[in-house]
Amino acid sequence: MILRSTFKTLGALLVTSLIASAPALAEKTYTLKMAETWGPNYPILGETSRSMAAMAEKMSAGRLKITVDSSNKHKAPFGIFDMVKAGQYDMGHTASYYYKGKIPNAMFFTTVPFGMIASEQYAWFYYGDGMDLMQKVYQPHGLLSFPGGNTGNQMGGWFRKEINSLEDLKGIKMRTPGFAGEVMSELGVSVTNIPPGELYTALERGTIDALEWVGPALDLAMGFHQIAKYYYSGWQEPAAELQFLINEKVWSDLPEDLQEILRVAMRTAAYDMYAQSMHVSGQNWSKMKEDYPNVSAKTFPPEVIDALRDATDKLLAEAAAKDPLAKEIITSQAEYLKSIRKWTNISDKAYLDTVSVIEE
Amino acid sequence: MILRSTFKTLGALLVTSLIASAPALAEKTYTLKMAETWGPNYPILGETSRSMAAMAEKMSAGRLKITVDSSNKHKAPFGIFDMVKAGQYDMGHTASYYYKGKIPNAMFFTTVPFGMIASEQYAWFYYGDGMDLMQKVYQPHGLLSFPGGNTGNQMGGWFRKEINSLEDLKGIKMRTPGFAGEVMSELGVSVTNIPPGELYTALERGTIDALEWVGPALDLAMGFHQIAKYYYSGWQEPAAELQFLINEKVWSDLPEDLQEILRVAMRTAAYDMYAQSMHVSGQNWSKMKEDYPNVSAKTFPPEVIDALRDATDKLLAEAAAKDPLAKEIITSQAEYLKSIRKWTNISDKAYLDTVSVIEE
Repeated sequence: MILRSTFKTLGALLVTSLIASAPALAEKTYTLKMAETWGPNYPILGETSRSMAAMAEKMSAGRLKITVDSSNKHKAPFGIFDMVKAGQYDMGHTASYYYKGKIPNAMFFTTVPFGMIASEQYAWFYYGDGMDLMQKVYQPHGLLSFPGGNTGNQMGGWFRKEINSLEDLKGIKMRTPGFAGEVMSELGVSVTNIPPGELYTALERGTIDALEWVGPALDLAMGFHQIAKYYYSGWQEPAAELQFLINEKVWSDLPEDLQEILRVAMRTAAYDMYAQSMHVSGQNWSKMKEDYPNVSAKTFPPEVIDALRDATDKLLAEAAAKDPLAKEIITSQAEYLKSIRKWTNISDKAYLDTVSVIEE
Repeated sequence: MILRSTFKTLGALLVTSLIASAPALAEKTYTLKMAETWGPNYPILGETSRSMAAMAEKMSAGRLKITVDSSNKHKAPFGIFDMVKAGQYDMGHTASYYYKGKIPNAMFFTTVPFGMIASEQYAWFYYGDGMDLMQKVYQPHGLLSFPGGNTGNQMGGWFRKEINSLEDLKGIKMRTPGFAGEVMSELGVSVTNIPPGELYTALERGTIDALEWVGPALDLAMGFHQIAKYYYSGWQEPAAELQFLINEKVWSDLPEDLQEILRVAMRTAAYDMYAQSMHVSGQNWSKMKEDYPNVSAKTFPPEVIDALRDATDKLLAEAAAKDPLAKEIITSQAEYLKSIRKWTNISDKAYLDTVSVIEE
């Protein structure tokens, strides 16, 4: 609108071109402040927020700039939700399940124990009911939430002692966030959440006996293998998805083209993080096996897995009984999983089984 | 540049804002003509080219328009490579392996029998050597190539008769494109490629006895289950990736912001297609089992799988011996697969195995 009313002195050709294309260009520069849960230069997770910002800036020819503050700056790694809600930051990059204390239903959008793997969960978010349900949870807080990158299937965690029975789990202190933490509590584990930057020290000093972080893509750089040698395969986070949060008012003040640029930049950065996580996990898993032969990769014994599954089902049933929206989300995820897992089993799983047999 | 020299009559505030942001905005509208292999309104594949075009147009506020011609218009479903190379179209949406007759090395970028699944292949494209190697193949033809959407793990195809032995395969006429077609030829199958729009008639009239198309996401709408009741699980296309092709001259004429918009729109549309394929496959697999109990889902017997694997290895070795670039691509894919499959096996596969045991 500004363009058409003020460009009177421009050459005829340019005016024709402008009117022909009628672009609703925002000539204004928008600078959004984003806070991330992660510390400075944190691999993969921090690269995702920055690559999103870089794509948005380049696509908008500099009209949309996003600055990123890490946790050393804002000092509130688990305060992203509050800061974006209050307008202290325009955007955040974090994981939804960190906020289960404030909004219990937020936790379902990161991952659920014994739930969907990444390929299934992205299908649920974008082609099932995932996005709508996530919006139902965040909208009352004046926030928009978008998938912010998937770690892929996470490992079950690092333990200083071997877990051979349910008894071995009782009383150990473990860092594991989200719903998985509640499940572990049911089995007698003393559960806590600790910001990423303090994890190594907490494990080293015995503040905790075990921790679950991500998987080989990020765990090796944290040094946990130097303290705790038992590395268990996963059950609790089959597809942990991070989230971008945006203050709704900030979003609605953006012109339509910049909204779309931001939406697509977030979507691509999120998918990219999953591909990068796969890449680095593959590399680091091989490296770990070579460089740290002491690390012992383990699977929890069946009695532990069964108990974890039972506790998960019990807690999900309790959550569903307490709150209609929780019930709607849990039902949507369970039904979606039931249908799509059949396809995963006849496609990728059947294929991996066939090839494994050949390779043996 | 135009902006700063001609905006003299604008108000001071607007000028300041413009200079402060210094956006290199292309005020010109660019219209790119894209040809797709698919027929009009083709589900998933055709939705991908259109959603890419819609994202690009919206992000550019109408400055980048992409028109899409389906095969009914250009009459050359497998001529996309030639038409974009010649400049008859600016862009194409197709699958690289359709052009193996002209450029044998193009086929490796769609999928390889017994190769990577989608999560692994995206990691190879974007964080391994995939993109560089694909560019090495397309660059001499004045083309840029980008991933254009993944179907996920494809089914092994529809057969009018049951395949119980290698003998049963000999002499049957089958539509299966790309490298898989060459492998099938080694086993005595008479292989042909047929445009999507003619597949049903070809199978119905007995021009072919079997065909491989995609999987439940697309096969049901094609009606193959009404003619051939044996539906075999896959080995040949563990992660079929489509491609966007762009004439390099067209690309380099675009301003930087529109190049980035186009790049990111293609990347998101491609990832989205994989999520959509998962979604529709899950839905249609369930629907097929309910509505068409006659369809018999089968797995090829071990002697057939072993022979397919041996023929694949033989042909890959032959291709590598013939051409240094083929060798480079085959080695890159084989080494990448070897490393990342270990991670897939300890993460998604181990998890799916654990959960399956519980579910049984």
